[in-house]
Amino acid sequence: MRIVDLIEKKRNGGEHSAEEIQFLIGNYVCGGVPEYQISAWLMAVVWRGMTDAETFALTRAMVASGETLDLSGIPGPTLDKHSTGGVGDKTTLAAVPILAAGGVFMAKMSGRGLGRTGGTLDKLESIPGTRTNISIPDILRQTATVGACLCGQTDTLVPADRLLYALRDSTATVESLPLVAASIMSKKLAGGAANLLLDVKVGSGAFMKTLEDGRALAELMVRIGEAEGRRVVAMITDMNAPLGFNVGNAVEVKEIVALLKGNPWIEAHLNFLVRTICGIGFVLAGRCKTQSEGEALTHELITSGAAFDKLCQIVSAQGGDTEYLLRMVKQQVARFKYDVRAPRAGYIHGIDASEIGMAAMVLGAGRKDKDDVIDASAGVLIRHPIGKQIEADNVIASLHSNCEISIREATSIVQGAFDIRDTAPELRPLVYETIGL
Amino acid sequence: MRIVDLIEKKRNGGEHSAEEIQFLIGNYVCGGVPEYQISAWLMAVVWRGMTDAETFALTRAMVASGETLDLSGIPGPTLDKHSTGGVGDKTTLAAVPILAAGGVFMAKMSGRGLGRTGGTLDKLESIPGTRTNISIPDILRQTATVGACLCGQTDTLVPADRLLYALRDSTATVESLPLVAASIMSKKLAGGAANLLLDVKVGSGAFMKTLEDGRALAELMVRIGEAEGRRVVAMITDMNAPLGFNVGNAVEVKEIVALLKGNPWIEAHLNFLVRTICGIGFVLAGRCKTQSEGEALTHELITSGAAFDKLCQIVSAQGGDTEYLLRMVKQQVARFKYDVRAPRAGYIHGIDASEIGMAAMVLGAGRKDKDDVIDASAGVLIRHPIGKQIEADNVIASLHSNCEISIREATSIVQGAFDIRDTAPELRPLVYETIGL
Repeated sequence: MRIVDLIEKKRNGGEHSAEEIQFLIGNYVCGGVPEYQISAWLMAVVWRGMTDAETFALTRAMVASGETLDLSGIPGPTLDKHSTGGVGDKTTLAAVPILAAGGVFMAKMSGRGLGRTGGTLDKLESIPGTRTNISIPDILRQTATVGACLCGQTDTLVPADRLLYALRDSTATVESLPLVAASIMSKKLAGGAANLLLDVKVGSGAFMKTLEDGRALAELMVRIGEAEGRRVVAMITDMNAPLGFNVGNAVEVKEIVALLKGNPWIEAHLNFLVRTICGIGFVLAGRCKTQSEGEALTHELITSGAAFDKLCQIVSAQGGDTEYLLRMVKQQVARFKYDVRAPRAGYIHGIDASEIGMAAMVLGAGRKDKDDVIDASAGVLIRHPIGKQIEADNVIASLHSNCEISIREATSIVQGAFDIRDTAPELRPLVYETIGL
Repeated sequence: MRIVDLIEKKRNGGEHSAEEIQFLIGNYVCGGVPEYQISAWLMAVVWRGMTDAETFALTRAMVASGETLDLSGIPGPTLDKHSTGGVGDKTTLAAVPILAAGGVFMAKMSGRGLGRTGGTLDKLESIPGTRTNISIPDILRQTATVGACLCGQTDTLVPADRLLYALRDSTATVESLPLVAASIMSKKLAGGAANLLLDVKVGSGAFMKTLEDGRALAELMVRIGEAEGRRVVAMITDMNAPLGFNVGNAVEVKEIVALLKGNPWIEAHLNFLVRTICGIGFVLAGRCKTQSEGEALTHELITSGAAFDKLCQIVSAQGGDTEYLLRMVKQQVARFKYDVRAPRAGYIHGIDASEIGMAAMVLGAGRKDKDDVIDASAGVLIRHPIGKQIEADNVIASLHSNCEISIREATSIVQGAFDIRDTAPELRPLVYETIGL
């Protein structure tokens, strides 16, 4: 087998055998195939696509490139959750403690953010002292004893994905359904959970811009998971507006703490999504018979304080300062705070997620390059939900940052993100579809 | 400008500006762009193609990557000739001395062969002592004084092509009309001649398999040359059967010597092509008014001995042994000679160029890898032209080699290459079309 022949086969629209894909990926990870051959092959895949059989084989070859988590020793049902990512998406930080408090074990590995805002790891690390770099034996131990772990993916898990992703990022070969699906699912499969809950975001603030594209990705990921014997549910949810009011890192943790403490002023979509995800998660993991039963359990775990306690246990197990979590609700974390006012009166029709994300990045909450340091305290706090009627000069958002210089630029971006009109808008649904339930 | 954005633009089917292409090629040649980005871009070009404006810009950027020959000091019309290559194609070795003897100056740079049989350089180097590695000042000096030079492309000419070709070869990105056309034309343009005569081969023994593909390449190359102010003629000629009877290196030189000495037993297609190319070449360079006038001049230069004398002058100027050229017609050059007999009686309908080339390579006349050493004496000598009626057991070819071990394999390949049937075939034309005359 020669790599150049495999590239030619894909270039001509042929279908690879599982052996051919294993040969490509296995040799690439060992350093036996130069990157210029893999990048040409990736572009041919973007061009010609992959069949389901090829995508399954690619996912399997990627999983086989490294270690996997063996959750067979965990004393209960295991669940993993994944979001394709969006602006203000802090759902994991709420869903993991809620589900764990309800007896579902979650060894949750997350990524860092690139662009716009930080990822779950960045948000978690805004809590002083919190470690996210945890070894596999410690992940297993903490999951079994505390019920959940929130950590980074270890270097030994799916090394093929790390290599391929860096290469795709610099060769314009990111946008490919089978490559995106294999990248996500290889990490979920290596994570070892029997049940997988996927949240595919669609809209201006998401990687997938249309419902159609989101559905294709969701369906493909469900097929990959089922081919490997996992139970998989995929939700397709809206990401045209930010999720929640707060966009940043510490400010998103603050919003989650408020949610877990039962604060009634939680943004409706965030509140709804956390409760829906947990409701479905409890069904998927076999803890509840119906979604509404799962949602009732979720409500109970929040009002009883069990969910917030579980977050504190997780943070504490990872060295984090739980006193900070209790204290932070009443504090402002950044040095500078600046109010953004509405340029006109009217109804808020939309708040562009992509623009709000850009403003948060300008303030320091995200990374332009992967080595950039995040300002954990920076962020945008939206003051009104979509649909609200406001007066000109009402404060519509406040900007938080440790660096005053970026505030002017962020202000104009945030003002542009608000679509204010004379008449009330029709409200968009949050969850478009649920696949596999 | 970022390379990844240019890759993405081409991936999405966009058109590059000339500046973008110059940026890509210029930075690649300086080592400023990693090969994995260029190979992904090349695959996107194979996928999306290039407009004429892009192809012109690519050719120009490749020419600009190195030195060019300045033929302004040459005391007469300049012509360059290029063949896209085929089995037994030795036309250059005859056409250059004939045209030079007729007052057309030719600084002809050629390549080595990879696969099948050797290139013009390999054939020339089978003449003892002949140097083909000649510096640019010496190429100019010899062309001005002797009338022609037959040499290798210097390292300083079109370095972008050398880099791109090696990368394309290992990433299955060779098959792309604009990339093929830019590769050929960048070298011709850098060669400095005012007039270009292109021979695009089509058929089983050629890179282009169909007349349609050959025509597209020929037309594109003519447009590139004309955009740069050159006069260009492209012929599209048949390469389903080998050109001439002899396929190898020394054996092809021997066939050319026989042709230039006016031997009447020259294979009809080879004889016709040499005379046609020279006839057109004399018109293109302004030496004759019509092609038939040019062909008459060609005939005269052969019968007078002027053309053979010119070959000897060229070889002598490059250190080669002209006595060898005079002697070789009556000698067998390889240690072993083996006759291949017809498996059945009938008419020869076809002699597959690709298979004969393969047999010659097996005998040692070609290279599997670029570092392989060629056996200059090895080759296949075909005994009968297409259309000839033969008896079973007639000798149809003889194999020459210094290595007896390969003869059995070559015999069966050669037998398989002959298509022998009961009825006489219709003969195929040699020249399908001439563009730009």
